[in-house]
Amino acid sequence: MSNSAGPRSTARDERGFPRFWDEERETLDPAKRDQHILERIQHQLRYVYAELPFYRRHYDAHGFHPDQVRSLEDFTTKVPVITKQMLVADQRENPVFGSYTRTFRHGEIARIHGSSGTSGVPTMYAVSRNDWERAGEAHAMAQWCAGIRPDDLVQVGFPFGLFFGGWGVVQGAERIGATLFPLGVTDSERHLELIERLGSTVFSATPSYCIHLLSVAQRMGIDLPRGTVRHLLVGGEPGGSLPGTRQIIEEGWGAISADAGSTSEMYPFQTSIGCEAGTGTHLYTDEVFTEVVDADDANTPTPVGERGAIVYTHLWRESQPMIRFAPGDETYLSTAPCPCGRTYPRLPEGVLGRLDDMLVIRGANIFPSGIETALRSVEGFGPEFRILVRKVGALDELTVQAEYSGDTAARVQGSGPEEAERHRDTLVSRAEEALKRMVGIRVPVQLLEPGTLPETTFKARRVVDERPRH
Amino acid sequence: MSNSAGPRSTARDERGFPRFWDEERETLDPAKRDQHILERIQHQLRYVYAELPFYRRHYDAHGFHPDQVRSLEDFTTKVPVITKQMLVADQRENPVFGSYTRTFRHGEIARIHGSSGTSGVPTMYAVSRNDWERAGEAHAMAQWCAGIRPDDLVQVGFPFGLFFGGWGVVQGAERIGATLFPLGVTDSERHLELIERLGSTVFSATPSYCIHLLSVAQRMGIDLPRGTVRHLLVGGEPGGSLPGTRQIIEEGWGAISADAGSTSEMYPFQTSIGCEAGTGTHLYTDEVFTEVVDADDANTPTPVGERGAIVYTHLWRESQPMIRFAPGDETYLSTAPCPCGRTYPRLPEGVLGRLDDMLVIRGANIFPSGIETALRSVEGFGPEFRILVRKVGALDELTVQAEYSGDTAARVQGSGPEEAERHRDTLVSRAEEALKRMVGIRVPVQLLEPGTLPETTFKARRVVDERPRH
Repeated sequence: MSNSAGPRSTARDERGFPRFWDEERETLDPAKRDQHILERIQHQLRYVYAELPFYRRHYDAHGFHPDQVRSLEDFTTKVPVITKQMLVADQRENPVFGSYTRTFRHGEIARIHGSSGTSGVPTMYAVSRNDWERAGEAHAMAQWCAGIRPDDLVQVGFPFGLFFGGWGVVQGAERIGATLFPLGVTDSERHLELIERLGSTVFSATPSYCIHLLSVAQRMGIDLPRGTVRHLLVGGEPGGSLPGTRQIIEEGWGAISADAGSTSEMYPFQTSIGCEAGTGTHLYTDEVFTEVVDADDANTPTPVGERGAIVYTHLWRESQPMIRFAPGDETYLSTAPCPCGRTYPRLPEGVLGRLDDMLVIRGANIFPSGIETALRSVEGFGPEFRILVRKVGALDELTVQAEYSGDTAARVQGSGPEEAERHRDTLVSRAEEALKRMVGIRVPVQLLEPGTLPETTFKARRVVDERPRH
Repeated sequence: MSNSAGPRSTARDERGFPRFWDEERETLDPAKRDQHILERIQHQLRYVYAELPFYRRHYDAHGFHPDQVRSLEDFTTKVPVITKQMLVADQRENPVFGSYTRTFRHGEIARIHGSSGTSGVPTMYAVSRNDWERAGEAHAMAQWCAGIRPDDLVQVGFPFGLFFGGWGVVQGAERIGATLFPLGVTDSERHLELIERLGSTVFSATPSYCIHLLSVAQRMGIDLPRGTVRHLLVGGEPGGSLPGTRQIIEEGWGAISADAGSTSEMYPFQTSIGCEAGTGTHLYTDEVFTEVVDADDANTPTPVGERGAIVYTHLWRESQPMIRFAPGDETYLSTAPCPCGRTYPRLPEGVLGRLDDMLVIRGANIFPSGIETALRSVEGFGPEFRILVRKVGALDELTVQAEYSGDTAARVQGSGPEEAERHRDTLVSRAEEALKRMVGIRVPVQLLEPGTLPETTFKARRVVDERPRH
């Protein structure tokens, strides 16, 4: 594996750069790509079955053998999935990196990262040198798709440490040859000041933090849409491709926002990337094969366009390869052609959030992502909101607490008490109507003043579950 | 400039690795090296005079012209130095990066970092792609000298963000091919737990933080000297090469500590690196030429072995090159042969600290580094101490407040009140004697219980100046 020679593309974009990072690969006939994918799947299945005790035990227990996979359909219908819980348990029994990786020789691991589990013991991720090199290439290809070019100045607002996310932005920007400013976590004011001072053209952080910065900019009198940022690279949490959320981010920043999806288990390989054409996120299925399946039966595919559970497979990774990993996230697919020319399938709204986060309220299945989309569709709210889940008698009840925006606050303050109350009432009823339309039941909305809820500077914590624990 | 092909050395070390990163370069006859250095100096002087308004103005104002430099002696005696204050002023007048860099074309800058000034406006550093590449090679060469090898697992405790320091550790470890675990700033307990869990063999942070972790390890019952860490790579503040400080770190960790010196203005080029042989820090003078001069006259060299002000020159950097930059740090040189075989000069005690930090108390010149060395020479103290400077009448007076160690605390608690007092008195008089020997005047020592002073997790703040401001 050698360093990339930069983009390979004959087509040009409007800035005079190559249109694709790897034109032949990205615009390949999907049927031909599927053939490559099947070959890699068969290779990976043989590899993990022969070398990795975790997979051998799992497959033996399910009566599955790699020879049974002769088509992509076989792969979906016959190979048992793996889950986060299985990986955590295996890593506990087989420290440090689990028996889902082969033994490493000295110096063979390029990187170690981790994610803090609820138990306090982080899950550890090891990335071999080959994998790290290959993932860098995938990051560059994805960032190129998101519109990042060598003349960009990329300012990063992700933390750099145990968490994996920000380091991939570093890799991709370095490989593209853009200027990197890895500022990391710092005061929001400083981020905005330095965007202005340096003329940063790309900002990368969680979607929640990008929304949070909108209200900080307003407070500071900074007119972001007239500023230099033309692309946002968001990730680290779902929501960046929800239409209402993306619209708020894009209008607030005056920039195109691309959702860079992944999970720590799949990282540093990115699983999807928002397309500049605004059609959702492309799945680089020849790098990370991605299926959408029935949430209750991971061996039953979900028809294109219908919601289901997402399942990922590393086609090239040798260290801790994930084969049919089900992170518990929900999404739906589209295979309609994209105007950008890439022939990869898409997630029109990205990853919608975790199936585990689904709330069942009066018989209705409610996803926090649905509540976010509803709320973002109503003008007058600020960035911060939360969803309270409480037990009222025998029933679970929801309340949405949402801050109104600085603009609304100014309008309310500038009017008499009666008019102010009318403003507030209108805002509440609009939000409750939007919620009713989106989730099917009435959810009461409480208005809060700006600054009441804690500011989101990394990943948002929207759901506050106040139900007694069993 | 191409990627490094790894170490070039025929000699082997006891682990079977090449002994040098670049044997020919590192063991070159100093007279031959001086010839290369002079050529590079002449090149840089012509470049900055022709291209960079900051230098042209400065040199013209001093009646200096690059043609006047025909020897290294000419360089020292004729070229005016530049200071931090001059750079800050120039950057204010010529945003963003000052007129001490040429204009960059799009994509020509690889990295932007900064340092937060006292004014709150950070000084910005721009590193071109060529410079970033070259600095990576210098980091690898320096880390190799410090004993880092491809079979090492390097855990980093520096913050990753605006501050430059940690990123060079990343560059060097990646280039050497060691495993990198860039954990960054997190709980001290987590750092120690992950060192144990992963078996990290190198830990990199400020010397103060390495000392701080000793007391955390003791509290947690972790026996560091029996652990896996065999090398420490310390930097980000002076003190890592003070004999007492290094001894405490090395004995506490059971590891060899290498002081990686630099300043943000010279970074990402390292200026010096602790030698595994324990002889001080080597100056890579063919990368960053380093002089020691009279503190009051930067055009008068200080004889080898005598204390003076340090002056740095980038021999290869094209973006923001520093030519005779005087950071205000104090040190002394040695040119005695080093058993490691490298023919570079050394700083036997590294960089001793800032000349600005010098305190004049009752006519005596006192450096915080001297107080640290004295205190570290007495057994029974913990990691934290501070130096109070107060006005008593018309005189400035010093008091040293120092925490005793956990061991001392246990001994004091396990004894009767009289014996406990005797323990404490002995500790105080030993410390006061050591201070008297080191700084020449009597400095009272106050004992504090462990945990009284704030814990140092990044750079230490030792001097507390309580004198009224003018």
